Amino acid sequence: MRRGIATVSLSGRLEDKLAAAAAAGFDGIEVFDNDLIASCLSPRQVAARCADLGLTIDLFQPVRDVAGIDPTAYDAALHRFRTKLGVMDELGTSTVLVCSTVLPDAPADPDLLASQLHGLGVLAAEHGVTIAFEALAWGRHVHRVGQSWDAVVAADHPAVTLAVDTFHMLARGDDGSALAGIPGDRIGFLQVADAPLLDMDVLEWSRHFRCFPGQGTLDVTGVVAATLAAGYDGPLSLEVFSDVVRETDPVETARDAMRSLLFLEDQVSGELATKPAARMVAAAPPPAPRVDAAFLEIASASPVVPNLLTGLGFTVAGRHRTKPVTWWRHGDAHVVVNESGSQPAGTCALGVVAPPVEAVAARAKALLWPEVDRTRGTGEALLPGITSPSGLHVFVSAAAGEDDWQHDFEPTGAAPDGWRGIDHVGIGVPATQLNEEIGFLRTVLDLTPGAVEEFMEPQGRLRSRALRPAEGDLRVVLNVEDVRAGSAPRLGVTQVAFGCEDVAAGVRALRSNGVPMMPVPDNYYVDLDARFALAPELLASLREHGLLYDRDAHGGELLHAYTAWLETGFYVELLERRGGYDGYGSANTHVRLAAQG
Amino acid sequence: MRRGIATVSLSGRLEDKLAAAAAAGFDGIEVFDNDLIASCLSPRQVAARCADLGLTIDLFQPVRDVAGIDPTAYDAALHRFRTKLGVMDELGTSTVLVCSTVLPDAPADPDLLASQLHGLGVLAAEHGVTIAFEALAWGRHVHRVGQSWDAVVAADHPAVTLAVDTFHMLARGDDGSALAGIPGDRIGFLQVADAPLLDMDVLEWSRHFRCFPGQGTLDVTGVVAATLAAGYDGPLSLEVFSDVVRETDPVETARDAMRSLLFLEDQVSGELATKPAARMVAAAPPPAPRVDAAFLEIASASPVVPNLLTGLGFTVAGRHRTKPVTWWRHGDAHVVVNESGSQPAGTCALGVVAPPVEAVAARAKALLWPEVDRTRGTGEALLPGITSPSGLHVFVSAAAGEDDWQHDFEPTGAAPDGWRGIDHVGIGVPATQLNEEIGFLRTVLDLTPGAVEEFMEPQGRLRSRALRPAEGDLRVVLNVEDVRAGSAPRLGVTQVAFGCEDVAAGVRALRSNGVPMMPVPDNYYVDLDARFALAPELLASLREHGLLYDRDAHGGELLHAYTAWLETGFYVELLERRGGYDGYGSANTHVRLAAQG
Repeated sequence: MRRGIATVSLSGRLEDKLAAAAAAGFDGIEVFDNDLIASCLSPRQVAARCADLGLTIDLFQPVRDVAGIDPTAYDAALHRFRTKLGVMDELGTSTVLVCSTVLPDAPADPDLLASQLHGLGVLAAEHGVTIAFEALAWGRHVHRVGQSWDAVVAADHPAVTLAVDTFHMLARGDDGSALAGIPGDRIGFLQVADAPLLDMDVLEWSRHFRCFPGQGTLDVTGVVAATLAAGYDGPLSLEVFSDVVRETDPVETARDAMRSLLFLEDQVSGELATKPAARMVAAAPPPAPRVDAAFLEIASASPVVPNLLTGLGFTVAGRHRTKPVTWWRHGDAHVVVNESGSQPAGTCALGVVAPPVEAVAARAKALLWPEVDRTRGTGEALLPGITSPSGLHVFVSAAAGEDDWQHDFEPTGAAPDGWRGIDHVGIGVPATQLNEEIGFLRTVLDLTPGAVEEFMEPQGRLRSRALRPAEGDLRVVLNVEDVRAGSAPRLGVTQVAFGCEDVAAGVRALRSNGVPMMPVPDNYYVDLDARFALAPELLASLREHGLLYDRDAHGGELLHAYTAWLETGFYVELLERRGGYDGYGSANTHVRLAAQG
Repeated sequence: MRRGIATVSLSGRLEDKLAAAAAAGFDGIEVFDNDLIASCLSPRQVAARCADLGLTIDLFQPVRDVAGIDPTAYDAALHRFRTKLGVMDELGTSTVLVCSTVLPDAPADPDLLASQLHGLGVLAAEHGVTIAFEALAWGRHVHRVGQSWDAVVAADHPAVTLAVDTFHMLARGDDGSALAGIPGDRIGFLQVADAPLLDMDVLEWSRHFRCFPGQGTLDVTGVVAATLAAGYDGPLSLEVFSDVVRETDPVETARDAMRSLLFLEDQVSGELATKPAARMVAAAPPPAPRVDAAFLEIASASPVVPNLLTGLGFTVAGRHRTKPVTWWRHGDAHVVVNESGSQPAGTCALGVVAPPVEAVAARAKALLWPEVDRTRGTGEALLPGITSPSGLHVFVSAAAGEDDWQHDFEPTGAAPDGWRGIDHVGIGVPATQLNEEIGFLRTVLDLTPGAVEEFMEPQGRLRSRALRPAEGDLRVVLNVEDVRAGSAPRLGVTQVAFGCEDVAAGVRALRSNGVPMMPVPDNYYVDLDARFALAPELLASLREHGLLYDRDAHGGELLHAYTAWLETGFYVELLERRGGYDGYGSANTHVRLAAQG
């Protein structure tokens, strides 16, 4: 498949956009008319620049309000269309996107629309141009793909074809099945965008919240697969605009866009594998069938981290055979302290078990995620590392007992009893990188993002999104803090949550070791009792140990406690899940945010 | 009227919120339950703190999902309600807000709701507490004020009263007339919030976009006036939460809130003046009946500004009688250069003609807007100054020929022919101050804000909102730039637009004087011709002079040109309005943003 991107998907001046698209390896672009109008490059200069960069111009877009309009305005529309065809001649592009009109006074007259489209088709054909007619989701009368297809059929001109746009279709509730029976050679162009599900005016939604495939929640794969299955063989072209894209460097956006397109092709190739009409698309190796949390690595050259680990009850379990790295454990919870000084103190990395390791590494590479620069020592386990957009290093290990990360350590004692393991890790990311970070975890590790949860902070807001694999115990929570001007959000690993069997005993041990715990206001327990009518002994125990509590609809319970912010730049949560409780105690988050300040 | 504010309207910890409310002069507060739950202050300590600060606790809020719910859940709800009544005893507050339920499984049964409300009323009465029952705009079955009033009537208990909330009512399309026939002594509480009109899910709208009265577009005044006319004599209490409030210092927010409440009282007093049931509310002197632009003041101790003014064609018209200030003019366009060094170079102030001057100054003072520190010299005109939230100084002058600002200058020559005057001034404000700045212009000068317009910048987004008086020629455009992380938006006066009779001649003069003009891409003229099919001579003239063009639906035309960004920190626009064109050429803004970079 040819890979394209619309200039409107990138910030900057037109020349910056072209350079960014070429640098990211796109084959072609869509020229957004306003980008051209505001550019000092003439259409011929744009064409020459694209040729130099190895980019084709696959589409000129959009021409608005030229079909299905009041007949008295049609002559002016033809004049406008003719002028744009002249521009296209100079650009050397032969497909133009015409949108369904949004004019309030547009007549609801399919015959008029068909005849006006036919007239445009006649003009276009004179220039060797094909029209792709798109149903804008907020079009006045034509806003579903079935309506635009009916108009294309009725227009009855070979130069009038259908534009398929995943956003416009899915926003209106159409899926791939809406394309059933449409021949691929009558589909003139395919535009691709995703979006998170939001209940708002569709035009505002489209303008501010589109994102690249895999970052949202729409079934983009299904529509693209249906379009390819129909026989469409034009480019897959990304048309994404959003507040985030407007404020991001175009080179970064183009790279992110290319990754998402590779991921989309990978998804589509899975979907099409069994269909005879399938067209070839790129396919990366599949993701690991299960992903578990393995260890947290903390960089430290000072005694702060070892002291903290000792306070938490961790003991040294082994020393790395070749590097200044120590393995600490607390039952099945593992922390690795990197004393090499190669990373700034406090930097955290995450180890996951996700075999087959080579395939995951190859998948990450195919999806253009950067590798961690790392030399593999003789006899050491294969432990490829990948860096997330926000800078988190993720090491991928084989399963325990195989050629896994523990083999690199010389054990120094027997495995002690203790905690269950890493329950989840909280990572602070800048608002502008949330989509990209989700894209990373979703495309490389096949984690599925949950709903966005939102909390008030004493001085700002916190948006959280938890991600989990279909199989395996890894849980990652991405946090975006919107803070006061002049303050900076907390970034990187901000929370490490360990699971245990008896959180009250755990907290007693932490307290006796002098670990600073987060104070819980007494008012919280009054409210807790109001909400859950707890047994007096349980309430007394929660109060005594400073535990927070939650209960789900099935009687599952969460008991948990937080440390204060630690010198390491994160805080620790200790939690006990009972009876299948599967959440994160969101009802208590506002108390934590107020208490931790 | 007693003036109140909900703790949820302010950021920070509970103690910060109380201090901020008291500092701004509020009489009372609403305690938001989550603020209390997360606080280390016990309810008794909160009560003591409030007493120390001179604040009453007027409301405890909210208690959710305790009425109109599945009968099997009612015992647990009563337990919860009873616990909260205990908390209220300690707080020493006697009104509680109960919201209509949002539970998906809530039965649609008015009799059940009435009997459960009655049961709550019996409990409340035992504590000397009154319930104010509120229809949440997104309640499961009760979401209109008429429905909540029916429930209060059917509950038939003296301790069960109605809560009026301007946001919930207006968001659902109810206005003050929905309160017709409801006796004031059955209205237990009045919560006040405004919002801009947005087409989105009402819960999201409420959470993120509420604002203080006068900053939004809802008819808050109408609902408040109707509530007071009914005989309600409890507090006017502001319950506003938004992304902006979360990220703003609570002391600033509380001051802004108090201003908006004073403005609301002023508006309401106007509305109630003729009604016999009117209750006393504060009233500031009325705003000026008309407001015109007078002059721009620029601080400058270097030759940059005089050189620019000379290049623009201004000549010196007078010297201030007592201060190092020079008056420049170009026809009816006036600029005053302040060489005193009392302001940083480039700082701009705005002079407006808005008599009666003393009344406007008194109005600003009554609405708590800060005065500009300024000594009035002997024999000088009364020229009170007021500082806007974003730091713009506005000087208020009498009309020309009276005791106006020009009288302070010794004329140095005859008035030259030239431009028409200041057409509009563009002011960049931080995103978090937009509401406050609109509040200033609206409450002091009675300007009306237009719709928000949004534009793509090469590296971000621009949101614009134009404001104008009902009478007079002052036009102010507020601009919010959302830029890349690491960049800073342009703030203060960024654009000065002058009107003239012949913009082509004007541009020729600027060019010959060496003023750097913004280049206009040739592609723009191709598109212009496509859109308007202009007469060839006009198109050629626009191209020759680098003019932009727009035409409205009535044939009114705008011809305009921009300078490049100037050393003074702003750019100049020269514009010619023909045939009643009344806008700002928004269709050309994307070209300007790209060309100016």
